[in-house]
Amino acid sequence: MENQKPWIQLENLLENEQHEELRSYLDEMSSEDVVSTFSHIRAESSVDVFMQLAPAEAADIMEDLPNSLRDKILEDLPVKQAAAIIHEFRSDEQADIIHEMDDKEASAILQELSPAEAESIRRLILFDSDTAGGLMITEYLAFDEDKTVAEVTNNLREKSSEYTKYNLQYIYATRNGIFEGVLQTRDLLLSTSDTKLSQIVIRGAKTVQETSTYDELVGFFDRYDFYGVPVLNARNELVGVVLRRDLREEETDKANLELLEVQGIVGGEELRTMPILERSKRRLSWLSVNILLNIMAASVIAFYQDTLSSVIALAVFLPIVSDMSGCSGNQAVAVSLRELALGVVKPFEVMRVWWQEVWVGVVNGIVLGILLGTAAWIWKGNIYLGLVAGGALAINTIIAVSLGGTIPLILKQFKVDPALASGPLLTTITDMVGFFLTLSFANLAMNHLV
Amino acid sequence: MENQKPWIQLENLLENEQHEELRSYLDEMSSEDVVSTFSHIRAESSVDVFMQLAPAEAADIMEDLPNSLRDKILEDLPVKQAAAIIHEFRSDEQADIIHEMDDKEASAILQELSPAEAESIRRLILFDSDTAGGLMITEYLAFDEDKTVAEVTNNLREKSSEYTKYNLQYIYATRNGIFEGVLQTRDLLLSTSDTKLSQIVIRGAKTVQETSTYDELVGFFDRYDFYGVPVLNARNELVGVVLRRDLREEETDKANLELLEVQGIVGGEELRTMPILERSKRRLSWLSVNILLNIMAASVIAFYQDTLSSVIALAVFLPIVSDMSGCSGNQAVAVSLRELALGVVKPFEVMRVWWQEVWVGVVNGIVLGILLGTAAWIWKGNIYLGLVAGGALAINTIIAVSLGGTIPLILKQFKVDPALASGPLLTTITDMVGFFLTLSFANLAMNHLV
Repeated sequence: MENQKPWIQLENLLENEQHEELRSYLDEMSSEDVVSTFSHIRAESSVDVFMQLAPAEAADIMEDLPNSLRDKILEDLPVKQAAAIIHEFRSDEQADIIHEMDDKEASAILQELSPAEAESIRRLILFDSDTAGGLMITEYLAFDEDKTVAEVTNNLREKSSEYTKYNLQYIYATRNGIFEGVLQTRDLLLSTSDTKLSQIVIRGAKTVQETSTYDELVGFFDRYDFYGVPVLNARNELVGVVLRRDLREEETDKANLELLEVQGIVGGEELRTMPILERSKRRLSWLSVNILLNIMAASVIAFYQDTLSSVIALAVFLPIVSDMSGCSGNQAVAVSLRELALGVVKPFEVMRVWWQEVWVGVVNGIVLGILLGTAAWIWKGNIYLGLVAGGALAINTIIAVSLGGTIPLILKQFKVDPALASGPLLTTITDMVGFFLTLSFANLAMNHLV
Repeated sequence: MENQKPWIQLENLLENEQHEELRSYLDEMSSEDVVSTFSHIRAESSVDVFMQLAPAEAADIMEDLPNSLRDKILEDLPVKQAAAIIHEFRSDEQADIIHEMDDKEASAILQELSPAEAESIRRLILFDSDTAGGLMITEYLAFDEDKTVAEVTNNLREKSSEYTKYNLQYIYATRNGIFEGVLQTRDLLLSTSDTKLSQIVIRGAKTVQETSTYDELVGFFDRYDFYGVPVLNARNELVGVVLRRDLREEETDKANLELLEVQGIVGGEELRTMPILERSKRRLSWLSVNILLNIMAASVIAFYQDTLSSVIALAVFLPIVSDMSGCSGNQAVAVSLRELALGVVKPFEVMRVWWQEVWVGVVNGIVLGILLGTAAWIWKGNIYLGLVAGGALAINTIIAVSLGGTIPLILKQFKVDPALASGPLLTTITDMVGFFLTLSFANLAMNHLV
C-alpha cells in the first residue's frame, strides 16, 4: 500500500469513502505529489476530492497546482463550491482565475461572492495583466491619518482573522483615500495611544501608478530594496500594492510562455489533461499558418523544375540548405529575444544588432559552406556541385543570421509578439532564398554540372 | 545634453575626467539604463568607469547587470580591483563569478582575498550549482548555544558593519558546529542578559542537506512559507542558508537557459558584446552536429533519385513534409519540456504521454494532410500526387508528434539535457522518415504519377 502511487491511493480513499483519511492524506502530501496526483486522476475524481475539502483547505492545495490545472478543476466544480474556494485566494489571483473563465461561468461565480468582493475583482480584471493594476493585490492595510494609534491597534486586534491574507509588511496612511505615506510598526508600538497617524507617518514614500508597466516595475524593484510598493490611481488614491514576489513570478511565467511560443504552442500553457480536440485546435491554429508559408516558400522550387531535372542531385541539398539556414537564424532570434528581455538592446537598435550579427553570419556561413561544399564535392566528384551547394548555404546563412537578429526587434517595434512570429517569418524567407540561391547558382553552373 | 543617450553622457564625463559627476550620474541611473549603458560602451570604457568607483559602489552597479556582462567586466579589470569588488558580493554570487573564470584568473583573484574568504569560496565552487550547497549563502548568524543573550547582542552591536551582507531574518544556535535550532528575535529581546541560548532556542527546526537537489528545495519552499532554510552537511553541521529568493532567481534562469538551448544557443547566455569569434565558435559547436544529422537525413533522397527524376514535382513537397512534421513535433517537445519542469509528468511515463500525444497527431495529421494533398491535387490536377504528399505528411505528423512528446522524457531518463538534444534528434528522424514516406509512396503510385 505505501509504495503505491499517490493518485492510486487517493482514488482508493475516495472509493472507500474514507473522507477523514483522504483529507489528512492530502494535507501531508508534498506539493510535487499534489501536482502529479491531480494530473493523473480523472476530472470527476478531482471534483469529488475537492467537494470533500473545506474551501480554505481546497485553496491551499490549489496553490500548488499549475494555473491551467487549477482553473480546469474550478470550472468543473459546482458554482457554489468554486466561489467559496475562490474567495480564499488573494485578489490578484482571484482576478486571474475569473479572467480565464468564459463570461457565463465568470458571472455565475461573481454572483456567489459578496458584492464588495465581486466589485473589487471586476475592477482588477479591467487592467492589463502587464501593468501595476494587473499585478497588484488589494489586501493591504490603510488607515485615515486622522485616526489615532489606539484606533489602529484595536482594529488590528479585532480583525486579525480577516487579515490573514494581508501583506502586513507595510501599513499605509491616507487622507480621504489619497495616499499620504507609510507607517512603521516600531512607531506604532512606541507612540502613545492618542497620537494621530498624521504625526508619525513617513511622507514622500515611493509609489507607482496603476498604469505603470511591467518593465517599469522591474526597474523600480531593481533600484529599491523593498518588499512591495503602493499603487496609486490618477487621483493619487491608494488602490493596491505590488509585491516583489509577484513580479518575480510574472517574470518566470513570461520566460516559460516565451519558450512555448517559439516552439509553436500559442494561447498560453497546454497541459495534456486538456481535451484532445482543444489541444489539436490550438496547435493547428499555428500550424495552418505555417503550412501556407511553407507551400509559398517551396513554390520557388517549382519554378526551377527544369534545372532540377537536369541535376537531380540538387534535390538532396535543397532541404539541407533551408534547414541549416533556419537553425542559424533561430540562434540569432534566441539571442535577440533574450537581449530584449534583459533590456541590453532596444527595438530601435536594428542597425547595431545587424552589424553585430552579420559577422557571426559571415564566419559561420563560410565554415558551414565549406563543410557542405566538401561533402557534395566528394559525393559526386564534381567541384562545381560543391561550389553551388556550399556557396548557397554560405550566403543564405549570412542572410538568415542577419534576419534572425533583427526580426524580433522590428516585430517588437510594431508591437507584434516577437517570440511567436519571428520563427515562422524567418524560416519562410530563408527557405525561399535558400531554394532560390541553390537553384539559380546551379543554373549558372549548368554546363559544369551535367 | 539631457536627451542624450546615457552611454554617450557617460563616455563624455569619462573623457572630460569629471569623475565626481560620473559617480553621481551612475548612482542616480535607473537599473534599465545601467544595463543598456554597459552593453553599449566599449570594454575599455567600462574598465575606466569601474576604476573610478569604490568597490561597494561598483558591486551595486554590477548587481543590475546580466551575469555574463558582469563577469566580462570583472575579467577585464585589474586583478586587485576585481578582487575588491568581488569581496562585496554575497558568497553564492562570489562562487558563481569565480566558477565562470578560467583557472588562472580565478586563482589570481582568490590570492587577493583573505584566506578565510578564499577558502569559503573554494568550498562553495565544489557543489553542483543545482544543489542546496551550490545555492546557499554563507552569510548567516550562528552562535554556540552556550553563549548568553548578552554576548550575542554585544556581538551584533559591535560587528553590525560586517553584517550588512547578512540575512538577519533568522539567527541560528549550534553546539560545536552542530545545528541545534533557531532563535527568535523577540526571545532575544525579552530574555535577561545572562540567559543561555540553549534555554530559548527552538529545536526541531526544518533543515535541508547540502546535497538536497533543486527540485527538493522547490518542494520544500512550496510546502513551508519560510524565507530561508538552514543547510546541514553529513555531520549535521550548519554550513549555509538557502533563501527562497535565490531559488526563484534560479528558476527564472533555468527557464531562460532552456529557451536559448531549444534554439541552439549552448554553453549559457550569449551577449552580443562578446567577441565575434567566441560567439561564432559556440554557435558552430551546435550547428556542426546539426549539419551532419541533416546530411544524413537528406541522403535518403539520394536513394530515390530515379523516382524523383520521373516525378520532379515531388521535389517541391519534400521540404514541406519534413518542415511541417518538424513543427508539429516541436510543439509536442515544448509541452513535454514544460510538463517536466512543472512536475506534472515523470520521465518514466513515456507510454502515457505517447497515448496522449498520438491522438493529437492523428487529428492534426489528417487536417494537415488534407490541406497539403488538396494543394498538390489542384496544382498538378493529379489526385495521386495529392494522395502521396498528403498521405506522407499525415503519417509523418503522427510519428513526429509521438516522438516529440516522448523524446524529452527518454532523454531526461538517460540524464541528457532534453532542451538541448530533443530538437536535433527529432528533426533528423522526422526528416528521414518524411523523405522516405513521400518517395516510397510515389514509387508505389508511379504508374499514376507520370
